[in-house]
Amino acid sequence: MSSPSTSVLKGKTVLPADKIQQIGLLYAVNDKYGGVMVDMKEPMDSHIYVPLLRASISQWRQQGKKGVWIKLPIQLANLVEPTVKEGFRYHHAESDYLMLVHWIPDSPDALPANASHIVGIGAFVMNNKREVPHLDCSINISMLFSELKVVVGHRVLVVKEKHGYFEGKDAWKFPTGVVNQGEDICTAAIREVKEETGIDTEFMEILAFRQTHKQFLGKSDLFFVCMLRPLSFDITKQDSEIKAAQGSYGGFSAVRPSSGKQNYLYFNGQDFKP
Amino acid sequence: MSSPSTSVLKGKTVLPADKIQQIGLLYAVNDKYGGVMVDMKEPMDSHIYVPLLRASISQWRQQGKKGVWIKLPIQLANLVEPTVKEGFRYHHAESDYLMLVHWIPDSPDALPANASHIVGIGAFVMNNKREVPHLDCSINISMLFSELKVVVGHRVLVVKEKHGYFEGKDAWKFPTGVVNQGEDICTAAIREVKEETGIDTEFMEILAFRQTHKQFLGKSDLFFVCMLRPLSFDITKQDSEIKAAQGSYGGFSAVRPSSGKQNYLYFNGQDFKP
Repeated sequence: MSSPSTSVLKGKTVLPADKIQQIGLLYAVNDKYGGVMVDMKEPMDSHIYVPLLRASISQWRQQGKKGVWIKLPIQLANLVEPTVKEGFRYHHAESDYLMLVHWIPDSPDALPANASHIVGIGAFVMNNKREVPHLDCSINISMLFSELKVVVGHRVLVVKEKHGYFEGKDAWKFPTGVVNQGEDICTAAIREVKEETGIDTEFMEILAFRQTHKQFLGKSDLFFVCMLRPLSFDITKQDSEIKAAQGSYGGFSAVRPSSGKQNYLYFNGQDFKP
Repeated sequence: MSSPSTSVLKGKTVLPADKIQQIGLLYAVNDKYGGVMVDMKEPMDSHIYVPLLRASISQWRQQGKKGVWIKLPIQLANLVEPTVKEGFRYHHAESDYLMLVHWIPDSPDALPANASHIVGIGAFVMNNKREVPHLDCSINISMLFSELKVVVGHRVLVVKEKHGYFEGKDAWKFPTGVVNQGEDICTAAIREVKEETGIDTEFMEILAFRQTHKQFLGKSDLFFVCMLRPLSFDITKQDSEIKAAQGSYGGFSAVRPSSGKQNYLYFNGQDFKP
């Protein structure tokens, strides 16, 4: 006796309707915007892939699907050209995959934008220990933003870069760096200071930020100037100075919302205390 | 008599050394980080391309070049697989091109990161005209950031979305949107309010921002809550209210640096006046 979902016809097993549909179609997962996502994982010859893709698009069109996403790992680079020939465009790429998209309906393409910004930080660490390299911060801040020149009159932590733009130049600068994919701005500031100077710090607030366009390869850049406080033995000596500086300028401090979401909210905590 | 750069040998013109080198190599432009960039524009068969690429890499290696960038327009999707087979990885992609990279030296890959963030805005427009849809802003702000609930007690401009996440839901929300590639945050806020409500506004300041991870396709999100002021006939009536609200909270206003660079600097202009 056959199982409820399989019929036996003249001694041959006939697959149920839902299984039949999967033969000859690409495996796709629905997204929450009325589209489908195909995550190609196994190697496939383009002569097998193209008929599958065509049949799948035909079915998705019948089903009223909108955006079709195809994620091709770099190992399946052989399928990029065939996918483009079927009307797909690139959406974005990371080191190990390329995402292609196709908008099925006649309506205007409502697919979301690619990531547009690289996020960087500059770490402004107040420190009056004479053994760390320092300059008057007014000189250093002017390297970043001349507008902030007079905000503070303290000594700050500066470094000389071994690589990058300042390589070989006799210039002191703030510890700076790129915020990694998935990293919090406040975490990145602490990490960069540790990496560049070995000093442990605590994030205080964002003093300012700058948005710049057409920086690297046409992308935009958001650069956050963060104030940090060193977690070193002479911290007590500094406390009053830091507080004085804070009192004179309300930056954006970081608060993790109580809702439990894994994100930070940055606002002027000096002016607004919930 | 031959020109200084061309020798004549037994009646045949011999190309100068620099021209000979260009035959059989891909045309590349040096970047400022010791690498080269190849911007492929004309269609090319992969059987012609691969020997050119191999010879070029060999030459770049001899020259001590570091990062090699190859930009392939989507029309040249046929060259993606051959480029990957020669040891390149993906760097990033936009709708119409794919950028591949290869790090020649034995040293660790120091290629810059791909863009990691999508930037969005929420527009907080203070308006006491009764004919525009409104709710108590405490309700609306709580939809974004519950922490800011009590900052202001005014009526604000809210909209109902026709598309996207709030489509079909009976929810009022702030005008929100994605900052376009190359667009300033303050410009995007004004544009979104105009598009969604038809109201012209002036950018006042950024009240707060939020960083969220793994939002869309693994990318991160920076969402800026902007305060704007409507450029409508009853603006006089509102002035005092707006100023009162401003006085109670120092956000980040936008200033274009005098250096003439095409970027905006955002900082607490209430606490710091240059």
